[in-house]
Amino acid sequence: MKLSEEVDKMVSEIADDLASGAAELALRAINVFRTTLSECESASLSDSRELLTETARAIVRAHPAMAPMYNLGTVVLNAADSVSSCKELHTQCSEALTRFEKRLCESASRIADLVYDLVPAGENVFAYSFSSTVVSSLLSARSQKKFFRAVCTEARPGMEGRRLATMLASGGLEVIHSFDLSLGLILPTCRAAFMGVDCVGRPGLVNKVGSWVLALACRELNIPLYALAGTEKFVPDDVFFAFEDHVRPGEEAWSSPPPGVKVLNHQFELVPFNWIAGLVTEEGILRESQIEEYVKKVEVHPRLEELALASS
Amino acid sequence: MKLSEEVDKMVSEIADDLASGAAELALRAINVFRTTLSECESASLSDSRELLTETARAIVRAHPAMAPMYNLGTVVLNAADSVSSCKELHTQCSEALTRFEKRLCESASRIADLVYDLVPAGENVFAYSFSSTVVSSLLSARSQKKFFRAVCTEARPGMEGRRLATMLASGGLEVIHSFDLSLGLILPTCRAAFMGVDCVGRPGLVNKVGSWVLALACRELNIPLYALAGTEKFVPDDVFFAFEDHVRPGEEAWSSPPPGVKVLNHQFELVPFNWIAGLVTEEGILRESQIEEYVKKVEVHPRLEELALASS
Repeated sequence: MKLSEEVDKMVSEIADDLASGAAELALRAINVFRTTLSECESASLSDSRELLTETARAIVRAHPAMAPMYNLGTVVLNAADSVSSCKELHTQCSEALTRFEKRLCESASRIADLVYDLVPAGENVFAYSFSSTVVSSLLSARSQKKFFRAVCTEARPGMEGRRLATMLASGGLEVIHSFDLSLGLILPTCRAAFMGVDCVGRPGLVNKVGSWVLALACRELNIPLYALAGTEKFVPDDVFFAFEDHVRPGEEAWSSPPPGVKVLNHQFELVPFNWIAGLVTEEGILRESQIEEYVKKVEVHPRLEELALASS
Repeated sequence: MKLSEEVDKMVSEIADDLASGAAELALRAINVFRTTLSECESASLSDSRELLTETARAIVRAHPAMAPMYNLGTVVLNAADSVSSCKELHTQCSEALTRFEKRLCESASRIADLVYDLVPAGENVFAYSFSSTVVSSLLSARSQKKFFRAVCTEARPGMEGRRLATMLASGGLEVIHSFDLSLGLILPTCRAAFMGVDCVGRPGLVNKVGSWVLALACRELNIPLYALAGTEKFVPDDVFFAFEDHVRPGEEAWSSPPPGVKVLNHQFELVPFNWIAGLVTEEGILRESQIEEYVKKVEVHPRLEELALASS
């Protein structure tokens, strides 16, 4: 079955949004499922399940590195599998979406509480790329009268670091901004660093390209780097490496390169756990040994698992 | 005494050129001195000396991190000090300029010979920022039938990495290009890395901001990073830290940041010698212990030394 034009359009907009973090895009993906559900009202049970499966697949394909897309799709498809009538499907799926939405918001709030204690008062704090969890955590600390200065860089080629700077400044933080490779000059002025995460699995953390260099520089300078991620970012091994497929057109980085120059524009990369001071989740600050337990519990719906296997 | 409009304009153009390396700009600075010299023809000996001093100071102020500017100014002012007539001044200074020009070109050629042996055949080779010495060395290796692929990044905010990519590609090299923080993905594909240098002194090497991160990543990945610099890049301790004054307007990195966001746009940074596999000069590949000997021999003319002291 084909998705409606409206759902197609919503998914394309999510796919083309390179400036937002995974948690923020997952909230928008919830609305895509709600639209599909409302379109299912006159469809049969099996057609409704198929439409929901197609929606889940489209959302995963939009951002294959973003773990919440798999986990959101899985809760919806599990809910759809568990019912025996159209009416029940609508109720169960709606409730699953609301629970996922609540989980995202509660995770962000609990992470912000933990981050409060990690922000060194009166110091410079580094933040990389764009993560709604990092923004809400730093602004929450600021609103609780912890004073500090935020330092960030552009995050080429998407430049979402400018969006980060703008949001932090509009929330009352003093922000110092520079280009990406100025890390060697500006990181030594910082006492802690924070980044979002797109995906957590046993091999490590996946985040925007540049995170590896940031983590390396933080390790060299003895600056604790905290990764912020609700457990909705956890994925099992079989879909973990889907992030490697997320390659954008080179023209987005250099619109008209001369002949002989090939432009690479990868989006995500792996950061080893042991370069990170801590993974801050709604379940607390996890160590590498604890992450395996959480990953074991995560299951991706078979119809989304196939998608990751097909692309790799 | 005031410099002529023409000389002022030539110096401004050099100051505003953020895409060229130090050796290349030094060649252009030689032409500025030649213009001043031709304007001196009807001036007195003392006025001529003063005009040459003003020219030398203007050139150093244009790029205080670029060592050849000090060393070029010094050879011209020493020549001007040694004479007793206007005619002699013209001859001696012209000869000093020609010798310096020849030295720059011979250095580049000798360095290219040494680089030939350092380029791993059939592999990817990384190059950072823009350096005419790196370009001439890699293209010379290519023209001598060594086949390899060049990998480089943008070098924000000046984007001189694109100029590097364009020149290497037009010389017949296959080039892979990406944004700056993709180092973590593209450096592991390389077997050697090369960068230019603006200034060499006892504390280390000075080069475009980003070189520190590049050197750190090369060390982590066991990729030899070679710095290419003729000995005209060596400066004594008293003018070494002038590079810290070379800060460009933030607007060049972000033209209209929102209120509350301060944009930093530093140009140069220090890389420690022990992170570099070798400093390739026309005198051979130097080790840290040898550099001190060379630095000891370099003298900056007192009227240029004052300038560095005044600015720090």
